[in-house]
Amino acid sequence: MARIVQKFGGTSVGDLDRIRHVATIVKAEYDRGNEVAVVLSAMSGVTNDLVGKVNEISRLHDTREYDVVVASGEQVTCGLMAIALQNIGVPARSWLGWQVVVQTDDVHGKARITGVEAGKMVGQFADGVVAVVAGFQGISPQGRITSLGRGGSDTSAVALAAALDADRCDIYTDVDGVYTTDPRIVAKAQKLEKITYEEMLEMASQGAKVLQTRAVELAMNRGVRMQVRSTFEDLPGTLVVDEDEIVEQQVVSGIAYSRDEAKITLVSVADRPGVAAGIFGPLSDASVNVDMIVQNVSADGKRTDMTFTVGKSDFDRAVKVLEDVRETINFESLSTDPDVVKISVIGVGMRSHAGVATQMFQSFAEKGINIQVISTSEIKISVLIAEEYTELALRSLHTAYGLDAD
Amino acid sequence: MARIVQKFGGTSVGDLDRIRHVATIVKAEYDRGNEVAVVLSAMSGVTNDLVGKVNEISRLHDTREYDVVVASGEQVTCGLMAIALQNIGVPARSWLGWQVVVQTDDVHGKARITGVEAGKMVGQFADGVVAVVAGFQGISPQGRITSLGRGGSDTSAVALAAALDADRCDIYTDVDGVYTTDPRIVAKAQKLEKITYEEMLEMASQGAKVLQTRAVELAMNRGVRMQVRSTFEDLPGTLVVDEDEIVEQQVVSGIAYSRDEAKITLVSVADRPGVAAGIFGPLSDASVNVDMIVQNVSADGKRTDMTFTVGKSDFDRAVKVLEDVRETINFESLSTDPDVVKISVIGVGMRSHAGVATQMFQSFAEKGINIQVISTSEIKISVLIAEEYTELALRSLHTAYGLDAD
Repeated sequence: MARIVQKFGGTSVGDLDRIRHVATIVKAEYDRGNEVAVVLSAMSGVTNDLVGKVNEISRLHDTREYDVVVASGEQVTCGLMAIALQNIGVPARSWLGWQVVVQTDDVHGKARITGVEAGKMVGQFADGVVAVVAGFQGISPQGRITSLGRGGSDTSAVALAAALDADRCDIYTDVDGVYTTDPRIVAKAQKLEKITYEEMLEMASQGAKVLQTRAVELAMNRGVRMQVRSTFEDLPGTLVVDEDEIVEQQVVSGIAYSRDEAKITLVSVADRPGVAAGIFGPLSDASVNVDMIVQNVSADGKRTDMTFTVGKSDFDRAVKVLEDVRETINFESLSTDPDVVKISVIGVGMRSHAGVATQMFQSFAEKGINIQVISTSEIKISVLIAEEYTELALRSLHTAYGLDAD
Repeated sequence: MARIVQKFGGTSVGDLDRIRHVATIVKAEYDRGNEVAVVLSAMSGVTNDLVGKVNEISRLHDTREYDVVVASGEQVTCGLMAIALQNIGVPARSWLGWQVVVQTDDVHGKARITGVEAGKMVGQFADGVVAVVAGFQGISPQGRITSLGRGGSDTSAVALAAALDADRCDIYTDVDGVYTTDPRIVAKAQKLEKITYEEMLEMASQGAKVLQTRAVELAMNRGVRMQVRSTFEDLPGTLVVDEDEIVEQQVVSGIAYSRDEAKITLVSVADRPGVAAGIFGPLSDASVNVDMIVQNVSADGKRTDMTFTVGKSDFDRAVKVLEDVRETINFESLSTDPDVVKISVIGVGMRSHAGVATQMFQSFAEKGINIQVISTSEIKISVLIAEEYTELALRSLHTAYGLDAD
């Protein structure tokens, strides 16, 4: 007997037929004699509709009330799923965030889970009752409903799995696992049987959309074995596990890309202490997230160029902020390029293997791809290139690192 | 300063514009320096949609989960209303049933309120915060969400008003008060300034749809002053109060009618003990509500006719049940008539005035209206007549009892 948490996103429970289908997936796990907790999102479209209503009443709304409204979406899915399960002979009951209890802080609209008390739920497992849990929601220290913000349901599932000491947390979605790279671009991309937390974290934060960074981070910290698998096809998925569970580790596990990048260069900035703060302080105040940053050593020790990237949706705002502080920062000109892509090569094997970067640079040189910015971490190399080279770059790296399927 | 509970039904909060409009009504009360609690239904159509989804998943569903699903409707309205109020400068917060706390029994789908703890809400009144409360819902002793069933929001409002020791409980609806009779039929019908609980109770249970019987009953028992008034027109409504608040009491206050009646006569039933039980036991087992019952004294002491009425929607079922037990009850034939109407004359003044019934019978005799069944209570006379006489009967009685407007 195992204890399994299963999480289904909005498209997986998008209509009543899909809810019935998900119920059969839950039943299969239950019939294997397992204890099962199911974490659900709202039916797809419902959350957007509720958010739309809130914004129509007032753009500047109380996020505590926003949370009351949006949390209703998961509530409906849970009630319907419990009924769908009972209907096929599986004892089930719904649990809302405040019933579980999923405790969070009081940062409404993007609350963080501070604790999960699931004792009552465990008691019902003993009676053979499946728990159907509303994802994306919790309760604040003040007793108000909170929502966890983007990707919250994945995080709910992992936090519950940790609290329940579950054997596995299965994230059911519309893809069947984690691939070496985007199979829509690289036909020879392979589904990974296993991937480490660290790699998954880098994949997620470097553009792969299959899992939310927060959820992976929590799984890593709490040692929750995750599996990404398909709601619509009964195939083995990808396990996200500790490094020591992976016997034969590839040097590079995957290649991610993000088109959500725009490049900004401040030409001829004074090269003195405090300049970086003068640039990035105002951007941060304007909630602009800065990603890659490169500052060259200045030739004359007096002036230098500063290059960095921001998310495409922050681009216009970032430029405006910089124009506003032009006098203070004292740069010569502003050069921008929104048509860039960030390509990241990821693998825990990099720690012990030299030459991974060199291989990348050689591949790009052979194909005539110019590298604009480079940034590295222990298990990742990211480069910024012109967006038009995206597909070419992914395919050539995929081959170069020996990731192509036979 | 007064403490006021305001209740708005589904049509009053049917879309975002109406929610904004209701917010201005609340603000007006708040601006008078009053403490205000607003009880809301789901936006019209939402509850039906949710119930439809539940039934589509399974006709035979767990009512605990049904309640989880339907309670989401009021949750959305409350969050949106709190935001709409804040948006026009009125501090407000939403309260769900489990937050208030509205305690109920565990008869899901039609739970009864067993207690209301509103201490925290009162604390916030002191800070000038309007309470926006989800009607129609509570929490069971097991900590599950319950719904109160038909008319539940009126009952929520009255129970909250009682717990808060409120000065008044205003029920906002799409009519502007309680009338002497249906103004769509009798043009000279007048809006009542005041009506007693007992009369309102009879009016509601005899067919007037303006208030739910349960809510009036609770208001009477707990001494809550109610007012029925319009959401869409700023007019004084009708106060529902104790008898001693009404200085000059009319003998007859109102005339109600119900077309939801069907007449069944069992011809030539044995006139012996146990026969009534033999007839009404099976009907009750089949959830058929029986209203008026008349049994004549038998001429020969052996056989008699038994006549009674049931709701139109129960009619077919009732006939089937009776055919099934025909052998046991041993009646000669079954005579039915669905084309009947029940007319009720109501007034606490009847207690001290004789001749009210006589006046009714005379009016009907003059107009050639045949009375089929009569039933009376201390403050009410109900008669069953052919449905085609409805309008004639109402108008003639309205004039006869001196209720016509000038």
